[in-house]
Amino acid sequence: MNIFNEMESEVQSYARSFPVVFNKAKDCFLYGEDGKRYIDFLSGAGSLNYGHNNDALKQALLEYIAEDGITHGLDMHSAAKARFLEVFRDKILQPRDMEYVLQFTGPTGTNAVEAALKIARKVTGRTNIISFTNGFHGCSLGAVAATGNQHHRGGAQVSLNDVDRMPFCGYYGRDVDTIKMMDKLLSDPSSGIDKPAAAIVEAVQGEGGLNVASTDWLKALQALCKKHDILLILDDIQAGCGRTGTFFSFEPAGIEPDIVTLSKSLSAYGLPFAVVMIKPELDKWLPGEHNGTFRGNNHAFVTAAAAIEHYWSNDELETDIKEKAKIVSARFKKIAETHGETTLRLKGRGLMQGIDCKTGELAAKVCAKAFENGVVIETAGNHSQIVKCFCPLTISVDALNEGLDKLEQSFAEVFEAEKLKKAS
Amino acid sequence: MNIFNEMESEVQSYARSFPVVFNKAKDCFLYGEDGKRYIDFLSGAGSLNYGHNNDALKQALLEYIAEDGITHGLDMHSAAKARFLEVFRDKILQPRDMEYVLQFTGPTGTNAVEAALKIARKVTGRTNIISFTNGFHGCSLGAVAATGNQHHRGGAQVSLNDVDRMPFCGYYGRDVDTIKMMDKLLSDPSSGIDKPAAAIVEAVQGEGGLNVASTDWLKALQALCKKHDILLILDDIQAGCGRTGTFFSFEPAGIEPDIVTLSKSLSAYGLPFAVVMIKPELDKWLPGEHNGTFRGNNHAFVTAAAAIEHYWSNDELETDIKEKAKIVSARFKKIAETHGETTLRLKGRGLMQGIDCKTGELAAKVCAKAFENGVVIETAGNHSQIVKCFCPLTISVDALNEGLDKLEQSFAEVFEAEKLKKAS
Amino acid sequence: MNIFNEMESEVQSYARSFPVVFNKAKDCFLYGEDGKRYIDFLSGAGSLNYGHNNDALKQALLEYIAEDGITHGLDMHSAAKARFLEVFRDKILQPRDMEYVLQFTGPTGTNAVEAALKIARKVTGRTNIISFTNGFHGCSLGAVAATGNQHHRGGAQVSLNDVDRMPFCGYYGRDVDTIKMMDKLLSDPSSGIDKPAAAIVEAVQGEGGLNVASTDWLKALQALCKKHDILLILDDIQAGCGRTGTFFSFEPAGIEPDIVTLSKSLSAYGLPFAVVMIKPELDKWLPGEHNGTFRGNNHAFVTAAAAIEHYWSNDELETDIKEKAKIVSARFKKIAETHGETTLRLKGRGLMQGIDCKTGELAAKVCAKAFENGVVIETAGNHSQIVKCFCPLTISVDALNEGLDKLEQSFAEVFEAEKLKKAS
Amino acid sequence: MNIFNEMESEVQSYARSFPVVFNKAKDCFLYGEDGKRYIDFLSGAGSLNYGHNNDALKQALLEYIAEDGITHGLDMHSAAKARFLEVFRDKILQPRDMEYVLQFTGPTGTNAVEAALKIARKVTGRTNIISFTNGFHGCSLGAVAATGNQHHRGGAQVSLNDVDRMPFCGYYGRDVDTIKMMDKLLSDPSSGIDKPAAAIVEAVQGEGGLNVASTDWLKALQALCKKHDILLILDDIQAGCGRTGTFFSFEPAGIEPDIVTLSKSLSAYGLPFAVVMIKPELDKWLPGEHNGTFRGNNHAFVTAAAAIEHYWSNDELETDIKEKAKIVSARFKKIAETHGETTLRLKGRGLMQGIDCKTGELAAKVCAKAFENGVVIETAGNHSQIVKCFCPLTISVDALNEGLDKLEQSFAEVFEAEKLKKAS
Repeated sequence: MNIFNEMESEVQSYARSFPVVFNKAKDCFLYGEDGKRYIDFLSGAGSLNYGHNNDALKQALLEYIAEDGITHGLDMHSAAKARFLEVFRDKILQPRDMEYVLQFTGPTGTNAVEAALKIARKVTGRTNIISFTNGFHGCSLGAVAATGNQHHRGGAQVSLNDVDRMPFCGYYGRDVDTIKMMDKLLSDPSSGIDKPAAAIVEAVQGEGGLNVASTDWLKALQALCKKHDILLILDDIQAGCGRTGTFFSFEPAGIEPDIVTLSKSLSAYGLPFAVVMIKPELDKWLPGEHNGTFRGNNHAFVTAAAAIEHYWSNDELETDIKEKAKIVSARFKKIAETHGETTLRLKGRGLMQGIDCKTGELAAKVCAKAFENGVVIETAGNHSQIVKCFCPLTISVDALNEGLDKLEQSFAEVFEAEKLKKAS
Repeated sequence: MNIFNEMESEVQSYARSFPVVFNKAKDCFLYGEDGKRYIDFLSGAGSLNYGHNNDALKQALLEYIAEDGITHGLDMHSAAKARFLEVFRDKILQPRDMEYVLQFTGPTGTNAVEAALKIARKVTGRTNIISFTNGFHGCSLGAVAATGNQHHRGGAQVSLNDVDRMPFCGYYGRDVDTIKMMDKLLSDPSSGIDKPAAAIVEAVQGEGGLNVASTDWLKALQALCKKHDILLILDDIQAGCGRTGTFFSFEPAGIEPDIVTLSKSLSAYGLPFAVVMIKPELDKWLPGEHNGTFRGNNHAFVTAAAAIEHYWSNDELETDIKEKAKIVSARFKKIAETHGETTLRLKGRGLMQGIDCKTGELAAKVCAKAFENGVVIETAGNHSQIVKCFCPLTISVDALNEGLDKLEQSFAEVFEAEKLKKAS
Repeated sequence: MNIFNEMESEVQSYARSFPVVFNKAKDCFLYGEDGKRYIDFLSGAGSLNYGHNNDALKQALLEYIAEDGITHGLDMHSAAKARFLEVFRDKILQPRDMEYVLQFTGPTGTNAVEAALKIARKVTGRTNIISFTNGFHGCSLGAVAATGNQHHRGGAQVSLNDVDRMPFCGYYGRDVDTIKMMDKLLSDPSSGIDKPAAAIVEAVQGEGGLNVASTDWLKALQALCKKHDILLILDDIQAGCGRTGTFFSFEPAGIEPDIVTLSKSLSAYGLPFAVVMIKPELDKWLPGEHNGTFRGNNHAFVTAAAAIEHYWSNDELETDIKEKAKIVSARFKKIAETHGETTLRLKGRGLMQGIDCKTGELAAKVCAKAFENGVVIETAGNHSQIVKCFCPLTISVDALNEGLDKLEQSFAEVFEAEKLKKAS
Repeated sequence: MNIFNEMESEVQSYARSFPVVFNKAKDCFLYGEDGKRYIDFLSGAGSLNYGHNNDALKQALLEYIAEDGITHGLDMHSAAKARFLEVFRDKILQPRDMEYVLQFTGPTGTNAVEAALKIARKVTGRTNIISFTNGFHGCSLGAVAATGNQHHRGGAQVSLNDVDRMPFCGYYGRDVDTIKMMDKLLSDPSSGIDKPAAAIVEAVQGEGGLNVASTDWLKALQALCKKHDILLILDDIQAGCGRTGTFFSFEPAGIEPDIVTLSKSLSAYGLPFAVVMIKPELDKWLPGEHNGTFRGNNHAFVTAAAAIEHYWSNDELETDIKEKAKIVSARFKKIAETHGETTLRLKGRGLMQGIDCKTGELAAKVCAKAFENGVVIETAGNHSQIVKCFCPLTISVDALNEGLDKLEQSFAEVFEAEKLKKAS
């Protein structure tokens, strides 16, 4: 592993949790150079919802490359882009009665967020953005201003401006109506909260700790935005693409955001890709006003179109996710009951569930033990206190159960060790 | 072309200049859906220095995908990354006696710039950044603050802070010593220029108009930075990877920047990829402090390593670029002489040359005519007044000449039409 | 009145409410050029707590001027300053067991706030400031960022940065513990609220609507600040100098702010004057780091010292204020009962009381009618919906009652007119 | 002096240079508590152009106070304000063929600058402001962003935004046309200099080092502003009110700024006072949009009107200033010749002249020696290297010569001591 120590920056993060060199991966499995197999409960932090190197997409990609399809074309028209646009329109938007135009930004989530904030500010002529406690929206300067996490905010080294922070659903406890609070602030000309261009929100906060916004809260947020003439930006970068059980995480709430950001699993193959969905009447961009060399990754167009055709032409995958989500819930409930529900609390929705371990220390121990036991799994939350299960949506039930067995065992081993430590 | 009008945002830019649907590409050629062949003098705005779907890299990529190599691994260690690091160390850094660690940022140039500015601010504890007139560094909020272009700055819609602008080499004419000016400002405690963390500069400004910083100016800039204890960030995103004749654009100047950003042609295959090179002693990142889902694109590791091995193990490519650069210079000189040197002025260096047409209108006409004639070529400069030739470095001499013939013809046709218009 | 229309900017405000030319004033009375007498229930927005041209101070000022005492001395030592410092120490600080050093800033409240924020940021090395809903702290750029009022914030025309807004005591209703909310935000490393340098607060918000922070809330705020290592800045510019019944508005709460700002009635004669009180251990200013030509107004030193000697050497004034406050409360209660307590609600504390009329329209009518009836009185509140009684603290009981009679009559006349309007 | 050490903040500045307690002052003389007389060559940093407690004004002030004229009236109409407006119109504006409305801001220079920047941004809808190297405009956050001095900028502790810095007249040497440079930057859409709302400039920079903008430069600056549709703000706070020989410092240049700020000597008696002069068509303020408790100081109205009537009804004072300026020039020339013109260089204009001593150390020694010798005098410049003579404009020729004698002697003593030190 010397080459990494020698040549790669200290900024490395996951490499510290999983100190092996991986060289192959298939579906829900990762393989180390020594051949050891790991079940992947991390899925590229939500970028591999269809698993690694999914055969349903791989062939399309191989053929496209073999035939010298356009790889890089800036934002020029390509046959691959046309096909993606058609499939996205026909299989994703039309069945959901949605109407948006797509902007292909630089192929990162943070760039999609930057573009979403820009267009919202441009359309409204206002600068302020509302974002929420524990929200995560990326690390470039515009996006990190909307991000809550101090570790990432501090990295910016400069003042993060033009954002006001509001409490997410349930932040002050389920009894406190945070939408009503926002309404008071936005209705009060002396509140000190400048009229915002937009509110940016995740329906289920990923990095922030698998915090689920209730359907009522999302509806109320949309109504609040309409009342105050504020745009609603739904950041579906992590929770979108099926992770919570529907293609968009906000579908159960029946809301229609003005702007939606997608990235991570959109390419379906782990390829860099990002999109901003914009209500047509808000598409006030000038040509090239927000640009970037890799906007529109043609390889990603190919795999994304193939994935949508394969997985989203009917409701099989949705049904499947719900089944697996129930399995995860049941197993997590059992783990929590075993080790004390006062200690362990369930979080999340769909295949975006986790166990809140109260402390980051405990959660880290569980993840470390799980890695020993052959499961790649990570933490989330403001104190990294949540062990989150982000298995591929397409994982087999057997593999899921194998992973959960190992995770359960890891919890048991850690709690046993803790008891011994306390006893001594 | 209906699907693009219907479904894609108005932000489209190149698609307006080249209103066809491309579906294949090989080396220096692009092919429309109707089979028409175009010579590519744009090269993905400098992202396709090795041409489209270069066979020397394609096979490695196809094999890697076929064998289920890691596609997406966040920042985890992978065999493909290890190999890239080794090749980059052995073939790029060591022969040039350079020592840097590499940070893999989100795979866009703008993200690399964001990371570079962050680490410079962190290491120095200062917030101010010096950037230069006509500099282009990207469109996310941190990067666009350093960018000069009003079209892109205006897109931000918010104040762009913590950057002071200085005149680039030759900005006030070749007689004016802009480094001396900067020295006066930085030495004067009442100048109003706060002591900066870093200066960010391109050795040859691409978007800004193929403005070449002289060797003396770059040396003097480095000396100035050292004198005032300011870090020097060399943004080599467009001019790097051989475009100017050497791997790094700053090699002829013999300087050693503290931080270097690379992207665009680094993957060599048009795949999204970006790197920040950091002097080891400045690598003060905390784990994950600047992160991003697609940092470290494994497909790009594969093609980048293959390209470095193939093209940078000896000096053949460098020699080759110099030869072709001479051809371009000669042909451009001839065009300028034909139509009046007072009208047309040569700009740039290596295979990053252009013809300044004085007005954006004229340059646009030439490019449009060239497209009719089968050449994809674009403008640069603060008034889009420069027709720039960004052919692949690996273009054959025949294809280069064919493209230049067509460009020459396009100039002739446009000037003829202008004369007729004036006459009537 | 032509000269004002011709020569003075449209920024005029109070002159629109009271469209006469005043030429004399004594104690609680203002006199128009035509000799008409007005009872002053505005008191220079809290700058004339001791009435106009108070004889107890006037003589001292006349003598000082006559004897050619230093008028302007920048921040040089003067005998007048020495005397003020001694009196302030002996009569104000020592009896209250307080220890502060004094900084004489430019003689405006907003400048004192600018200085307070600067020193708090300097001492802590942090940039963020917490301010509260409906807070008012001035109109220069640093201060207006902390001010809530949109009318004044909008005037800045630029982004107002480095301030996070928190709910004041009772903002979400008396049941909601806003300190607990703040604690949650400040304890959560992903809340998005950057660790602040200081919280700036008024014990009774003046412009914001005579909102009274409870003793418990202020104590809890101080405890919260200590817990999170945040400085507490008490802006006592309007509520201080006896307005609420004690010299400092925060005395009843028994708290010890780290920094206190004073201005308005501190000079006691309506002369421009402002002070920042700083705990000695926080006095990390470099010489002249925050300066201003008129810092330390020697005429104000003279009148301020005389006022403190005269009014604050014993508790007579405090007792007196309490008596008059009771009168105001009783009379306001009667007015509210007469016209319906659902319509009119009492606000404030001490001689900083008002009647919330629910709408700014109604409040404006009452004030206009009162002016007709010979009382100068103004509104406060986020919708200018509160008629506020800011009589001089030294007003005679007779004059107070005369003014209240006229105010009561004005309410009656307005309500009568409203009824007639509705009836028609 | 104990009370100052005990009770006053470390921010004290002039008190350190002149460590005595002053208690009386008349015309050009200051008197210590011990009766020692000092000639005042500082004049309250330009706030006492008419000397201390000038009898021509004193009587008017005493009478006004004695008669209980309005002291504090917020921005209400008062007879004193009416009179000031009339006198200012009749004696200052009309003879100069100027048309402006007056805004009375908080009575400090910095507040006038804040207001000027606000209205310029509001009228143009732009945020950027151009200010100049070595410019000084105050210490509140909006003003200090335009100020060049690092000592004061650093005090802000936060990023100072929305200002771009340009070189003042002669900054790069008399041969370099800094207006042409600005024109290039403002004409170039990729320069990175956002189109500004206004340029703010001093005709003679005071704190910055008595740098004189040439008449040609000021004219060219005005032309540049007109060409680019930028407002011109002339900050005449220090150089105005006769200091340079005419009432406004910019009169000799024949320019008509869009906005002018005045303060310091405007009240003529050292009383806090500040005004923004605004071209009528730019007066787009909403009522109270920029406010402040002490805007419009009635005592200052009285003394300012008296001073204008007394000193500016004819050209006697102007002629007088010119005579004294010649004396200062001649004496300074002699001092410079005596001690080597390579060491000492003359700066400034009118009674705003100084001697550049090359180092702040030397200048400080001269001032300290002068104070010993009975002259209060201070330094200016980016390295505090300039000994500046700011005598009252109304000083008698005898007193002027006495002061200059002592200053000459102080130079001699310091140079002698330096020689001895070097010799040893």
